[in-house]
Amino acid sequence: MTDLQLVVHDASEVAAVRDGDGSSASSGLEPIDDGAVAVVDGEIEAVGDSGAITREYPPENAETAIDATGRTVQPGFVDPHTHAVFAGDRSDEFEAKLQGKSYQEIMAEGGGILRTVRATREADDETLLANLLDHLDVMLAHGSTTVEVKSGYGLDAETELRMLEAIERADERHPIDLVATYMGAHAVPEGSDADEYVDEVIDEQLPTVADQGIAEFCDVFCEEDVFSVEQSRRILEAGRAHGLAPKVHAEEFVHLGGTQLAADVGATSADHLLHATTDDVRALIDAGTVPVLLPGTAFGLRTEYADARGMLEEGAPVALATDFNPNCYSHSMGYATTLACVGMRMTPAEALVAATRTAAAAIDRPDGPGRLEVGAPADLCVLDAPSHVHVPYSFGVNRVDTVVKDGEVVHE
Amino acid sequence: MTDLQLVVHDASEVAAVRDGDGSSASSGLEPIDDGAVAVVDGEIEAVGDSGAITREYPPENAETAIDATGRTVQPGFVDPHTHAVFAGDRSDEFEAKLQGKSYQEIMAEGGGILRTVRATREADDETLLANLLDHLDVMLAHGSTTVEVKSGYGLDAETELRMLEAIERADERHPIDLVATYMGAHAVPEGSDADEYVDEVIDEQLPTVADQGIAEFCDVFCEEDVFSVEQSRRILEAGRAHGLAPKVHAEEFVHLGGTQLAADVGATSADHLLHATTDDVRALIDAGTVPVLLPGTAFGLRTEYADARGMLEEGAPVALATDFNPNCYSHSMGYATTLACVGMRMTPAEALVAATRTAAAAIDRPDGPGRLEVGAPADLCVLDAPSHVHVPYSFGVNRVDTVVKDGEVVHE
Ligand SMILES: [Zn+2]
Ligand SMILES: [Zn+2]
Repeated sequence: MTDLQLVVHDASEVAAVRDGDGSSASSGLEPIDDGAVAVVDGEIEAVGDSGAITREYPPENAETAIDATGRTVQPGFVDPHTHAVFAGDRSDEFEAKLQGKSYQEIMAEGGGILRTVRATREADDETLLANLLDHLDVMLAHGSTTVEVKSGYGLDAETELRMLEAIERADERHPIDLVATYMGAHAVPEGSDADEYVDEVIDEQLPTVADQGIAEFCDVFCEEDVFSVEQSRRILEAGRAHGLAPKVHAEEFVHLGGTQLAADVGATSADHLLHATTDDVRALIDAGTVPVLLPGTAFGLRTEYADARGMLEEGAPVALATDFNPNCYSHSMGYATTLACVGMRMTPAEALVAATRTAAAAIDRPDGPGRLEVGAPADLCVLDAPSHVHVPYSFGVNRVDTVVKDGEVVHE
Repeated sequence: MTDLQLVVHDASEVAAVRDGDGSSASSGLEPIDDGAVAVVDGEIEAVGDSGAITREYPPENAETAIDATGRTVQPGFVDPHTHAVFAGDRSDEFEAKLQGKSYQEIMAEGGGILRTVRATREADDETLLANLLDHLDVMLAHGSTTVEVKSGYGLDAETELRMLEAIERADERHPIDLVATYMGAHAVPEGSDADEYVDEVIDEQLPTVADQGIAEFCDVFCEEDVFSVEQSRRILEAGRAHGLAPKVHAEEFVHLGGTQLAADVGATSADHLLHATTDDVRALIDAGTVPVLLPGTAFGLRTEYADARGMLEEGAPVALATDFNPNCYSHSMGYATTLACVGMRMTPAEALVAATRTAAAAIDRPDGPGRLEVGAPADLCVLDAPSHVHVPYSFGVNRVDTVVKDGEVVHE
């Protein structure tokens, strides 16, 4: 018998997330009462009834045994949309907005995204790496084991490459698996116009990003007064030609057409979607593009949430993400599930699947993390709670106790 | 020189909460950059510039020294409204409501508050104590050092007394200071009518509760279809005659008159207040009754928030609480400040004062906890964040690192 790496036994519930049959947004989630999980070589070897599993895989024979009595085991969260590498602190803008300052006033005083761009350009490589590692520590403590991170606070080739390098270095050092996205088209830099900058992205940034070989995706902020549908299309097609799969920030503030664009270019995901129509959602389904909802952003901006229920009723495989960034300062996928339930009326089961299996599909890892079934990577959370329902039910409280990555305990 | 118990030094910020001068809701909060705190005999001995404090109180002479570089020191949170002693699990109702079940349907199936009453009556004393201690551990990890806990899931003399006894026993064993409130009038028990039950509360429960000597306050749920203003008045006056100071759950679902009642009877606090009018708020101010806002409850029920800004503009000293209970499953005062800012547009400074100094006033501890000034109890949180603003700014993420109670490190 091969080496038994880990047995988690006597769990109040094992929230086994498996392949869905498409019958509902939570199909494939099977909560096993009094369950256990056995791990060999970083992969899940067996999942099931605790009595049966522990007879076949005795905890005393395992390198590590976790008695999960009264606790729940679920897949590690997959966070498919973050902007976690940056420098500077914009908490003062959170305060200023509450004191009545408008976004326009904050921008006029040099605040907003371009302030993060200045701070990020000025930061050295070690600062960017250290900041990212700090954020990843918080994410890991909240149960995320795979996280997508975007560049996009450089807006020049040098800084975009430095951000992507920080992501690669953090991936080597940190237990969380990182997936890198190039997002030179996150904003138009100071002193440029959009068309000029789109040329720079396509002619200068994209070739060097492709040469660097870290980024897997190319994302664009398709939004009124940022990048038009046509500008976005040019960037995504150029990215595709360089081997980067498309992603789109679409319909966040107005309905511009970014969702249809995402479907047209066969994007891996379309994200935000607050103003997406039913036709948009159908186009995503037909194209196999995953809708990624970011309820933390809507919460922080006090806007309406995306229409998750409408999307689920159309049969779309909705994913959740934190959108962690200076303007949405939440590292917690558990909190994203609270907002998904309370704000968007998803059920706890739908939210768990959206934050694991479907989130993995949104970063093109359809057979990798985000599952708890035989053969999946042993990326697990042990929750200090008797069922997966307690994650969204516990408002603003992290229920993650112990985190396992590839069968190793990496946080407790 | 007396024994130096603790020095916390080199803090990025010491959020010193002192007496306000009434000029604004955040007056008295002085953020000290590069600050320190010295503690002798469980009390704050000195607060100020880190260089000056550490010259006079060298960290190496202290029993405990905390290097708070890059971190913030603030008063421990005071949570003035919780229902933290109960048995049973109602997370399935959270799920059922998201699946479309109405509150009426849940009640008809035996759910809701009376389900918690049944589970609490059936639970033995050790279970009630263990459950409460578990919740207090989570609250402590989120920075609460003083917490009010109400009875009210017994609705009979025996169970109400057992709940209050659990509070007293937990207070003896747990670092958090507890304040006990008798709330026999939390609901009308199954098989009684309201008038009958009010007689039972006044004639049977209150005398034994007073004899027991644990409860300090008497609270009542003054609400349509629960207890009328006149029934509530009878209970609060009877409680007062037994030495229990009044508190009122007022105007949560409709405007019934509970706020005016609170002012009439000189209640220590009036809580919820979603439907309170400007006249109501003025009456509270005149009576010296503290308005306690519970934004977690509104968040969970997806109702409007209380009008915090209107109350602050009238000059009311607004306090915040979690309202932790099976229907609002949040132990976190930090999260209450996020909701206060995002949901009710309080500023981070107003929210911090509301969650500390004013919260202490709401449980009649005006000169005790909730302050960070010379002579106050050394109840402190060290935050893994550069300023107090990061607490509400970090959505759904607990920034509390280390908790100090009476000068002792009780959580890290
Ligand atoms: Zn984004
Ligand atoms: Zn209450």
